[in-house]
Amino acid sequence: MTQLTLYTFRACPYAHRVEIALAEVGAEFKRFEIDLANKPEWYALKVNPAGKVPTLAYGGPDVPPDEPSPGSVKIPESLVLLQLIPELFPHASTLIPSDPIVLAQARLFIESFSNTFVPAYIALLFRGDADGEDRLKAAMDSVIQTRREHGKRYAVSNEFTIADAAVLPFIARAEVLFGGDFGNAEAPRGSRLIAETKADPKYQPFWEYFELLKERESFKATWWPDAILETARRMFAK
Amino acid sequence: MTQLTLYTFRACPYAHRVEIALAEVGAEFKRFEIDLANKPEWYALKVNPAGKVPTLAYGGPDVPPDEPSPGSVKIPESLVLLQLIPELFPHASTLIPSDPIVLAQARLFIESFSNTFVPAYIALLFRGDADGEDRLKAAMDSVIQTRREHGKRYAVSNEFTIADAAVLPFIARAEVLFGGDFGNAEAPRGSRLIAETKADPKYQPFWEYFELLKERESFKATWWPDAILETARRMFAK
Repeated sequence: MTQLTLYTFRACPYAHRVEIALAEVGAEFKRFEIDLANKPEWYALKVNPAGKVPTLAYGGPDVPPDEPSPGSVKIPESLVLLQLIPELFPHASTLIPSDPIVLAQARLFIESFSNTFVPAYIALLFRGDADGEDRLKAAMDSVIQTRREHGKRYAVSNEFTIADAAVLPFIARAEVLFGGDFGNAEAPRGSRLIAETKADPKYQPFWEYFELLKERESFKATWWPDAILETARRMFAK
Repeated sequence: MTQLTLYTFRACPYAHRVEIALAEVGAEFKRFEIDLANKPEWYALKVNPAGKVPTLAYGGPDVPPDEPSPGSVKIPESLVLLQLIPELFPHASTLIPSDPIVLAQARLFIESFSNTFVPAYIALLFRGDADGEDRLKAAMDSVIQTRREHGKRYAVSNEFTIADAAVLPFIARAEVLFGGDFGNAEAPRGSRLIAETKADPKYQPFWEYFELLKERESFKATWWPDAILETARRMFAK
């Protein structure tokens, strides 16, 4: 069997995309946690020169993850891996829609989320930008509008696809981190933002979509809020 | 037959990616030129709300391109289209590598080029940034290094793939536009940059790669330097 090792970090939303994909296809793989605040020296040398997670080591001999072999191919980038994994296990999941047009719509949904929700999330969490809150609300609205246009159960399809797997880790972290008023903002207002949007009928379809995604087994099996909160406490400790 | 209409612009490197893909798969399609400096009113209303090219209208009734039907699906984004087109015409081209790992490497190559060469090209052409020249050279070097690692004829494979189609329109424009000292820079230095890198053995593998790509029939059939130069003259006229 081809060796698969995922270098990952429980708190990282990008790595979480790949964890969900691996769970969806039912892949056997080795999981190795890289504490991003305290990386082992060999990681940049032997796995990912940029020192980032996620990275997948594919193929090569059966070695312990902390003794990576030059014989495996090292593949970084969450969106590249999110597509690669179902391509490595064709017919094992619904992640890649069989209709190319629906697949293109999934990629457009990811592109839009990556250009709206993700930067708003980062702005609000790490910089406390004044317009972060409005940008996050606009991004939620964009998710609502796109789903409405497609009129399907999930983002672009009645099946769970890469579009859903790409956005879920960020929405889940937004809920627990803003809900817990974490962030570098001078005046924390995350919990108010979450409460307000949950109470506002305008944003109901967004949170209903999130409730649907949370039911997914691949999410339940890869969701470690304690690790996320612990990392947030370390990161935002004054 | 499924209707395909490409809304495009000869000078636009993003649209050029899609023109190359359509030529590679040998698709029959309608081509409609959108002058980005003088867009028809119906374009944003009926095709692409952002007013950008390329956009593909897929399916629906057989209508004139300037009377687009609501019955077709409108798909924007050059990199989404660059993958969609070979997926719509499987086995018609080598654009999508059959090995998923090579496909992942093609996507990583595009990602890297999009984060290095493309912004350096834009910085140098439209803003004349002081560090634009160094950034473009570093991006050329990155192309050289990645190709060396893979050791194949093209970017990541012995076949012409989406990786090559994604980068070719930008390299070709860099050569003619910087070579012609076009740009908003106060002190044009594009022609010196092109001449210097062509004479420097360090950058030879980059220009050799470009020479190889230029031989591709799909490039020759979609390369309109006169239109590019005319647009540049209009754009950079003082």
